[in-house]
Amino acid sequence: MIGEFGLALASSGGEKLFLTLFVMFVAAKLAAEIFERLKQPAVAGEILAGIVIGPSVLHLVEPTEITNTLAEIGVILLLFLVGLETKPADIFRVGGRALAVAILGVIVPFVFGYVTLILWGEAQIEAIFVGAAMVATSVGITARVLGQMGLLNLEVSRIILGAAVIDDILGLIILAVVSSMAKGGVNYVQIATIAGMAIGFTLLVIFVGARAVNKLRPRIEKLKVGQSQLMFGLSLCLGLAMVAHYVGVAAIIGAFLAGMALAESAEGTDMPHQTEAVTEFMLPFFLTNIGMQLKLDAFFNRNTIIMALVITALAVISKQLGCGLGVLSMGKKKAMQIGMGMVPRGEVGIVVAQIGLGLGVINDGVFGVVLFMAVATTLIAPPFLVRLFKDEKSVDEEKIIPLSPLF
Amino acid sequence: MIGEFGLALASSGGEKLFLTLFVMFVAAKLAAEIFERLKQPAVAGEILAGIVIGPSVLHLVEPTEITNTLAEIGVILLLFLVGLETKPADIFRVGGRALAVAILGVIVPFVFGYVTLILWGEAQIEAIFVGAAMVATSVGITARVLGQMGLLNLEVSRIILGAAVIDDILGLIILAVVSSMAKGGVNYVQIATIAGMAIGFTLLVIFVGARAVNKLRPRIEKLKVGQSQLMFGLSLCLGLAMVAHYVGVAAIIGAFLAGMALAESAEGTDMPHQTEAVTEFMLPFFLTNIGMQLKLDAFFNRNTIIMALVITALAVISKQLGCGLGVLSMGKKKAMQIGMGMVPRGEVGIVVAQIGLGLGVINDGVFGVVLFMAVATTLIAPPFLVRLFKDEKSVDEEKIIPLSPLF
Repeated sequence: MIGEFGLALASSGGEKLFLTLFVMFVAAKLAAEIFERLKQPAVAGEILAGIVIGPSVLHLVEPTEITNTLAEIGVILLLFLVGLETKPADIFRVGGRALAVAILGVIVPFVFGYVTLILWGEAQIEAIFVGAAMVATSVGITARVLGQMGLLNLEVSRIILGAAVIDDILGLIILAVVSSMAKGGVNYVQIATIAGMAIGFTLLVIFVGARAVNKLRPRIEKLKVGQSQLMFGLSLCLGLAMVAHYVGVAAIIGAFLAGMALAESAEGTDMPHQTEAVTEFMLPFFLTNIGMQLKLDAFFNRNTIIMALVITALAVISKQLGCGLGVLSMGKKKAMQIGMGMVPRGEVGIVVAQIGLGLGVINDGVFGVVLFMAVATTLIAPPFLVRLFKDEKSVDEEKIIPLSPLF
Repeated sequence: MIGEFGLALASSGGEKLFLTLFVMFVAAKLAAEIFERLKQPAVAGEILAGIVIGPSVLHLVEPTEITNTLAEIGVILLLFLVGLETKPADIFRVGGRALAVAILGVIVPFVFGYVTLILWGEAQIEAIFVGAAMVATSVGITARVLGQMGLLNLEVSRIILGAAVIDDILGLIILAVVSSMAKGGVNYVQIATIAGMAIGFTLLVIFVGARAVNKLRPRIEKLKVGQSQLMFGLSLCLGLAMVAHYVGVAAIIGAFLAGMALAESAEGTDMPHQTEAVTEFMLPFFLTNIGMQLKLDAFFNRNTIIMALVITALAVISKQLGCGLGVLSMGKKKAMQIGMGMVPRGEVGIVVAQIGLGLGVINDGVFGVVLFMAVATTLIAPPFLVRLFKDEKSVDEEKIIPLSPLF
């Protein structure tokens, strides 16, 4: 009876809502604290916490529409915050390298995934889907690790961010091709439209966004609504996330572009600091929700376990190789840093596998393998990133004058 | 095809998630801006925005499990923030008056609602449910208005907050009695248990909470996790909201008590300011979601319209009268301030009506009437509150403004 009233008075979200919110948030923060003390990346702890509280171990919580929504808001805010630290010019300067990283980082993993599944004896369409899932990059994880180390303003960090945006557009095109193949035929006009809109949206926001925002700034400061800068920023973030979603790229790309458009006008204000507080509240739901996706009971099959481990290893190696090749001229260390930064597949890889499952072209076993690969790459990358970046120092921008006449 | 991929890549919350997030947030903020310029309370604008974007007018969005969850998180954060400005001693000092306000503010509206429905010719059990719905107080709305005016530290504000906590416990008991009547018989032992747990939880947190938190403070400051004060505060907020929910009182009461327990140790830190940023992001979902509940198409019946207006008028008058009577010794103006502060029924009134509908003891027409009353009282109170409080000045306790003037 008590529970019944409690539920009713709570008025929403099912009986377990409050338990879910509390457990996800606190488990994430406890794990972050433990990992920080062990000098390990907090992000990995928070994803692990999700595995522990999720269906695989304790089953206190499970992924639902609610947790997916909170996770989505969390990662949107994270990419918005990363965008706030990234000016469009920072990305332009590394554009060519980012493009090379993205393209090679798409080709090599796709080929690795495809060939492996064919050799394994799976059907061609399944091989293509696993290849497509291996192309995905979940830049949020890397951005969080580098952000917590204060290294988002390094050249390599910017190459990773730029490559992730391009990677998302390439991934969209591949997914469009692959999905229409699964349905029987490829409509090139439609795919060209998708690609055109995605590229057009991205370039439009990059080229026009910052200028438009800078012009609007005096007006925003005059608004009577409380914390007008923050409110305008969050509105732009949600708005461009929505447009990106309808255009076909990931919502997080829209959020990142919104942050970038605001980067200049937000500088020196309290807004990034406030956005950080909002992000810190929502992000644990994103990180634990990744771990919660894993259902280890799908892995009682020996064959599946081996395949999951092989695919995960190939997922790591192929991004290292592909992305690294694109920037080999920068030296082996930077190539490894960038390659490792592109390793996490996270929620993007999971979504590709879900589409395949939904179209009925991949079976539960292959889905489980991709799921494992997506979560495992997300968990493996942070500790390596910490090691690869531990000797780097934050670039103090004020001391570098990029357009100095001496240059 | 584009929409389909976009949806899939978004990976959650249904096709309309991003549209819903954007529309709710931006509509709320636009309305707040317009109302601020018209020197009207922003809160009323945000609820009205919800009516406009909701099923009654534009039908861009509608209340779902997702919007209810975001709303719940929003109001929990709001009450947590209000708690951060309220020390337990502040409430103790006004305890007796708050009790009088709460008790009379329960009896008078219940009698008014009950008698009116009996005179109207409705069944006794329906009359009892409408009475119970008129007892509810949605303190969030009043707290927001007073918070934005910087007046949460007035004695009358504290009486309102204290009375709202007691009111919630009384409402829980009434609802327990009424629901068991609807089911056929009243189990007094069970109801005494519910009451005992609710009261015990509240007193325990009030008496032990702040002391426990103050002792923990040095340890929390030593934590390695980022923004440890904020993270601990939000964990406590979600934790006590969950316990309150399971004990049977509203989750917002738990959040308010969590804030109160932290009020002393948070003073002078950046934590309340950061909590404010988080709240400003989530609160628009609570306010618009109230307006979105309204379905005006249920009101094509002339009888229903008249009854809705009568019940709404009585809801306002009965709280004014009942609560005012409890503090008449403080003078007519303060009695009116407190009475008006207790007028909004909001989500609490809606939940009572939903329980009645779920038990099959009230019909759709009566449900529509209660819904209208709940939303209308929430909309009516803020402008009156602004007028009643416009000559008040913030009590300058430590000669510093307690929260940022932007709240």
